[in-house]
Formats: sequence, C-alpha cells, structure tokens
Amino acid sequence: MKNVALRLGYDGTAYHGWQRQKNAVTVQETLEAALSRLYKEEIRVLGCGRTDAGVHARKYLANYRVEGDVFIPPDRLPLALNALLPHDVAVTGACEVPEDFHAVFSCTRKEYTYYIRSGGVRDPFERDRVWFRPERLALDPMRRAAEGFLGTHDFAAVRSVGTNVKTTVRTVYEFEIRQEGELISFRIAASGFLYNMARAMVGTAVYAALGKLSPEDIPRILAEGDRTLAGPTVPPQGLYMTDVRYPGEAGRLMEG
Amino acid sequence: MKNVALRLGYDGTAYHGWQRQKNAVTVQETLEAALSRLYKEEIRVLGCGRTDAGVHARKYLANYRVEGDVFIPPDRLPLALNALLPHDVAVTGACEVPEDFHAVFSCTRKEYTYYIRSGGVRDPFERDRVWFRPERLALDPMRRAAEGFLGTHDFAAVRSVGTNVKTTVRTVYEFEIRQEGELISFRIAASGFLYNMARAMVGTAVYAALGKLSPEDIPRILAEGDRTLAGPTVPPQGLYMTDVRYPGEAGRLMEG
Repeated sequence: MKNVALRLGYDGTAYHGWQRQKNAVTVQETLEAALSRLYKEEIRVLGCGRTDAGVHARKYLANYRVEGDVFIPPDRLPLALNALLPHDVAVTGACEVPEDFHAVFSCTRKEYTYYIRSGGVRDPFERDRVWFRPERLALDPMRRAAEGFLGTHDFAAVRSVGTNVKTTVRTVYEFEIRQEGELISFRIAASGFLYNMARAMVGTAVYAALGKLSPEDIPRILAEGDRTLAGPTVPPQGLYMTDVRYPGEAGRLMEG
Repeated sequence: MKNVALRLGYDGTAYHGWQRQKNAVTVQETLEAALSRLYKEEIRVLGCGRTDAGVHARKYLANYRVEGDVFIPPDRLPLALNALLPHDVAVTGACEVPEDFHAVFSCTRKEYTYYIRSGGVRDPFERDRVWFRPERLALDPMRRAAEGFLGTHDFAAVRSVGTNVKTTVRTVYEFEIRQEGELISFRIAASGFLYNMARAMVGTAVYAALGKLSPEDIPRILAEGDRTLAGPTVPPQGLYMTDVRYPGEAGRLMEG
C-alpha cells in the first residue's frame, strides 16, 4: 500500500466547499473522480480542511492510498490529473508519504488569507475573489484587534457551531494585516482553525475599524466565549487557504 | 441635450460580448438596464468597440445622451450606477462630453492586451482570464513576428469576416510582448482593430514560436491578405481591452 500526498489549488466559486456532499458538487468529489479515472478504481481522498462553499485554496493538501501494483510515479501525477480535472482545480505537486501520514492529523500549521477591497470602486474581476466594502477601513484598530487574538486561547467566541471538536483551544501564531492601495489582506496562521474561525476573526477586526467594538475588548470576548460578542462571519469569497505545513516529505512538497 | 461618457470595466465571462443581441445577455444591455432604472427612462448607450463573448475590458468607454432636465452630475454616476449593476461590471468614472462626441468615431487609439500562461501548471484562478498553453513559447520569434505588424498596413489577413468596414487599413503603433514568470502579455496599440484582429495577431505570433510560420513572413502574409496564411484566432478569455484614447474631456477621463 502506498500513501500519496497531492498539493493542489482551486477557485472555490463553483463548489459547495471541499467536503463530499449529497446533491452538491464539491472539490473532494471532483478530485476523487479524476483520481478514480486515472487509477481505474475508486479512490477516496482525505483533505487538510473543510473549506466552505465559495472559499478558495492557493495551497491545499490531500492524501490517498493505493495498492503498490497501480502506483504511478508522483512526478507524473500533476500532468495526468490536470488533464482530467476541470480548469478551476489544479494539482501542482505530488509525493509519496509515510504510511501513517494523515492530511489532518499530521498538519502542524495552517494559514488563511482574507482579502477586502476597502473604499474606491468595486473591481469587476474580483467579484467572487475579494469582499468589497465601500467605506475605508482604518488599519490601526484592526491591527490592535488582531494582536488580541495572538497566542493560545479558547476560540469558542469566534467559531460557528456545527462540527464536533474535542477542544476549542487553538494557538494563533500570526495575524498580519497589510494594505496595498485599496486592497487589505488579513493573513492568519494558527495551529488549526475552528469552523468559520478565520472569517469571524476578520469580521471582528472589521467591527473594530467600524467602532462597533473596541480592539482592547478581544481578550475579554475570548475569555467569555460568547459568539455574539465578537464580529460577524465575513462572506466566503474573500477567503483563501494559503499555506499548510507538515513535517518531512509533505512539508517539502508544500514549500515548493 | 447632454452627452455623457462613462469609463467602465467588466469581466466578460458571463456575457455574450458588448453588443446588444437577441436571446443572449450582453454588457451593453446590462449597462442600459442600469441607466434606464437610474434615469427612469429608456437610455441607449454607444460603446467604443464590440468585444466578443468572453472578452474582458479593464478600460472601456460608452456614451449616451439625456435631456438636460434629468441630468445627473457625472461625479455621482459611478456610485449610483454600481449600486444597480451586477458585480462583474463597474463604472469607474464619468464626464460630460461635447454634443458631437462619439464613442467610436472620436476614438484616436485603442489598446488590447492578451495573456498566455505558457509552460508550468494551469492556475485555477485564471480559468476564464488567461489562455493556458502547456508548452513554453519562445519570446524571440514572437517578438520578431510582432515587429512585422508595426505600421500602416492592410490587415485583412488577420481579421475574421462578419462585419462591414469601409477599409481594412489600420495603423499598429505598438506590439509589445513581455514575460513575467510563466505569464506572457501581448499588448497591441492601434488606430483601430478589425474583427478578431488582436486575437489573430497573437495567434500569428504563437505560430511563429511554434515554428509553424516564419516571423519574417509577416509582411508577405499582410501583403497577400489571405487569412489562411496567418496564425489562428486565439481563444477569447485571454483578451482585455486595456486602453482607449480620445481628445479632450473623454481623454482625461480615460487617463484617470
């Protein structure tokens, strides 16, 4: 049995998220269909996270297992799979990983980046790619709010219910907010993300810019664990998974 | 009667081109619907060019006439119209222009830019935005081919039939090919473009890179005026109208 990791990217606009669903097209089933055609047997993949409908991925990892007698050299996989995939999903790398490698449990760090065009005029090429806000959002209160999230905390105040997790404690390593012209990027790196956590953290920073909450209140909001005290979950189209880290071979694959 | 010019941009993916058609959604009718709702009377616009289905515009000009008693100050138009337009069309500026201003006849220079991702792996975010070619296209023969188009010529060899024009003579001022990583841009500035001319010129440059024609043959191909001697019409999704120039107020509007 061989364990294979794929690095891929996708424009999530046309998909109901990563995870296989009844009656809705997802990235997982699209990738599985291409793999199953390539290997001429049913292949099931495990993805590094459940991105929501409309959320994108610049770097995403999925792994799957195949019998040794149908093994395809990993360097041939991107070309072979991209010929079978729709043009909004692309496999950009592949490698063999140890038998016990697991896309979720082996992951050491994830990064999401959210984009807001703030002020000025909507860009028609960003319709499904960036959240547009007509007002100019001030960076300073958003950056002070971002600081409040850094470190190890219970993040129950910035998650949506709907998935079962053992603990809502996570570590946020970085929350960097940058501006280039009218485009503001929010890059969040963490040990892991609860459901909708990245979008609620961005929404909380936006609320700080709008004066709807004080940046200094973040520690208290996290401590109270009450979702209604934090900012709203911002829309999915501005969100991208931009990095996932692993030890060993998969880690080098994602760096490439 | 007031004559008003709008600067706009659009992602052409969802549209059957600029020009109003029966049984197909176009940018012209979409803009006219927004204007007609705003002015509460039927408004017809005149666009600077007929872009094809799937072709985009970063800078496009359209003008229309309204009675003085319903005149809206041009600086209020972008916000008012963008609230009524779908998110893949955006008005980015407006100004009043002289009574005799005409989006087509007043135009002094147009520019199109075509994008090809050449070699490497498809980018899922460029599906409807860039033409992907798996082979690496050599710049040198394409640049030599591009030189052959410069100047005033009969461009019948690189147009598709289907529109009536008085003359197929045009002047190409610039044809610049640049590469950034795997992305190649083809920027063509001309006095005007015949139907499919920009896409056939790019296709001819690509054929030069593929060795299917010699860059030195371009003058002969233009002189013979035979469409079958030139390269193919490349697909629409890589093409963007990137500039349109006018004298006076409209010229300043487009520079902004």
